[in-house]
Amino acid sequence: MSGAGNFKNCGSVLVTGANRGLGLQIVDSLATGGFSPGTIIATARSADSSQKLQELAAKYPNIHIISLDVVSQQSIDQCVEEVGKLLQDEGLNCLINNAGIKMLGDFNTVTAEKMIENFHTNAVAPLMITKAFLPLLKKAASRGGAGGPRSMGIQRAAVINMSSLLGSVELNWGERADTFKWYPYRTSKSALNMVGRCMAVDLEPDGILCIMIHPGWVRTDMGGSEAPLSAEESVSSILSVIGGLTEKDHGSFLNFTGEVLPW
Amino acid sequence: MSGAGNFKNCGSVLVTGANRGLGLQIVDSLATGGFSPGTIIATARSADSSQKLQELAAKYPNIHIISLDVVSQQSIDQCVEEVGKLLQDEGLNCLINNAGIKMLGDFNTVTAEKMIENFHTNAVAPLMITKAFLPLLKKAASRGGAGGPRSMGIQRAAVINMSSLLGSVELNWGERADTFKWYPYRTSKSALNMVGRCMAVDLEPDGILCIMIHPGWVRTDMGGSEAPLSAEESVSSILSVIGGLTEKDHGSFLNFTGEVLPW
Ligand SMILES: NC(=O)c1ccc[n+]([C@@H]2O[C@H](COP(=O)([O-])OP(=O)(O)OC[C@H]3O[C@@H](n4cnc5c(N)ncnc54)[C@H](OP(=O)(O)O)[C@@H]3O)[C@@H](O)[C@H]2O)c1
Ligand SMILES: NC(=O)c1ccc[n+]([C@@H]2O[C@H](COP(=O)([O-])OP(=O)(O)OC[C@H]3O[C@@H](n4cnc5c(N)ncnc54)[C@H](OP(=O)(O)O)[C@@H]3O)[C@@H](O)[C@H]2O)c1
Repeated sequence: MSGAGNFKNCGSVLVTGANRGLGLQIVDSLATGGFSPGTIIATARSADSSQKLQELAAKYPNIHIISLDVVSQQSIDQCVEEVGKLLQDEGLNCLINNAGIKMLGDFNTVTAEKMIENFHTNAVAPLMITKAFLPLLKKAASRGGAGGPRSMGIQRAAVINMSSLLGSVELNWGERADTFKWYPYRTSKSALNMVGRCMAVDLEPDGILCIMIHPGWVRTDMGGSEAPLSAEESVSSILSVIGGLTEKDHGSFLNFTGEVLPW
Repeated sequence: MSGAGNFKNCGSVLVTGANRGLGLQIVDSLATGGFSPGTIIATARSADSSQKLQELAAKYPNIHIISLDVVSQQSIDQCVEEVGKLLQDEGLNCLINNAGIKMLGDFNTVTAEKMIENFHTNAVAPLMITKAFLPLLKKAASRGGAGGPRSMGIQRAAVINMSSLLGSVELNWGERADTFKWYPYRTSKSALNMVGRCMAVDLEPDGILCIMIHPGWVRTDMGGSEAPLSAEESVSSILSVIGGLTEKDHGSFLNFTGEVLPW
């Protein structure tokens, strides 16, 4: 069931960067899992480019493909409008900020431009997207969900930010630090962790849960072929963590296994 | 002596943003302290604008004013050239990345532009400046300093990054979180903490110490008149912490009182 069982009380999920890698696998696992959410919104900056996503959408009518370039405000606004028409008074239950890029750059090769580009896509875009979807998230949250009026979780409303272990400042030391000296990527994910933490503070009064999650090291275009996890394994684990989130997880940085990670 | 006593073994200090606020106070306290470093390089994007700095430089011949706009690569390169001519084979012992801006913006008012501008000045600029000064820092570090060949500290070479408690993701929770909802500023300082941590990893083989420090909440243009500390009090404490740094502090995030802060 790809760990997607707990999505049975979740009306709608939106995923960014759903044309390949982890985003595509999330859509796949949600659609083919035993208890699929009512509506799966797969967004991508060029959805046409992904045959696999087109095939999935043809097979599963609850998958809706909508265009979204996460660094374009115009694209964000247009996406919100389309999603609003689709979901109407139900609102959006679960927003997964998954799209991301990895700009390489060690101390010698890093440039200001690389730092800013990675920061924009990985940290600023999730903020601008969450802001834009706030009315739809609030709608879903105000409907309360299965767990009672004060509960938090994906049955109500949640924002999931795909972060990375490489964004942990604490863990960037000793042996771990010597392997991946990617200034733009690491910095963008540390910045995302602060963005997500700030959002958790601000979304709490509306009953909207917000967390950061590390998907593990996964064999995707970004993760490379040496990675120990398949996309299916990672996503199965991620979805079971997301499905089980409660208010005690609010504002935290979780591993794909569910453990809390240090900032 | 404004806590500057421990700078007696430090040949040269460069401060960014030295025309007002904490940067100006650092220059003042270093120059007027009992044991002033041999050369104090006060950089500012428009040094002419600061009468106080001009007066200090007229009175203390070891103060050199050099132009530096931290977000301009051309300005950085030119500054390095001038500083290189001044310090020659001595190299630079202590680089203080102090210049910073505070862009306001809560969840409703924050924009992508504000996020990027604050990130550029507060997190990217310290990286680009440290890269550019690396040859001069290495020169100073390779001369060894008073503490023996493997020791670290300002008698050898050090990079001090002026961070903020507001950059701590861990502490951005509960009561503390409700007061200062400044997405651009908080995020830029979390990003700076990762930049500084990455630099610490990369500078260690050359014996160059690197830390992040929170100056306390201080009455400057940025801190405002409600702040509990005067610039003199803060800088006195900061300089005594910087003066006492050793390899055990390398890569850490310190309060102005010397305690370790959580990321
Ligand atoms: N794989 C790992 O080991 C690993 C580890 C830790 C964290 N993560 C994180 O997990 C997330 C997914 O990673 P992945 O491994 O699936 O990466 P991936 O295979 O490189 O896929 C990245 C996805 O993000 C999309 N994207 C990038 N920029 C975009 C934009 N401006 N607008 C819309 N979509 C955009 C890409 O779309 P296009 O096809 O249009 O480029 C693609 O769908 C990322 O946030 C990544 O940082 C991955
Ligand atoms: N005050 C506090 O309570 C507090 C608390 C935590 C952290 N900090 C940090 O401490 C540092 C100093 O703060 P402060 O209180 O002294 O702030 P401030 O009074 O606002 O002074 C900021 C300084 O940074 C300079 N600066 C800004 N952008 C620059 C650029 N592009 N190029 C060159 N210089 C630039 C300013 O120069 P111009 O005059 O040319 O603008 C000014 O000298 C900052 O990094 C700040 O984030 C302060």
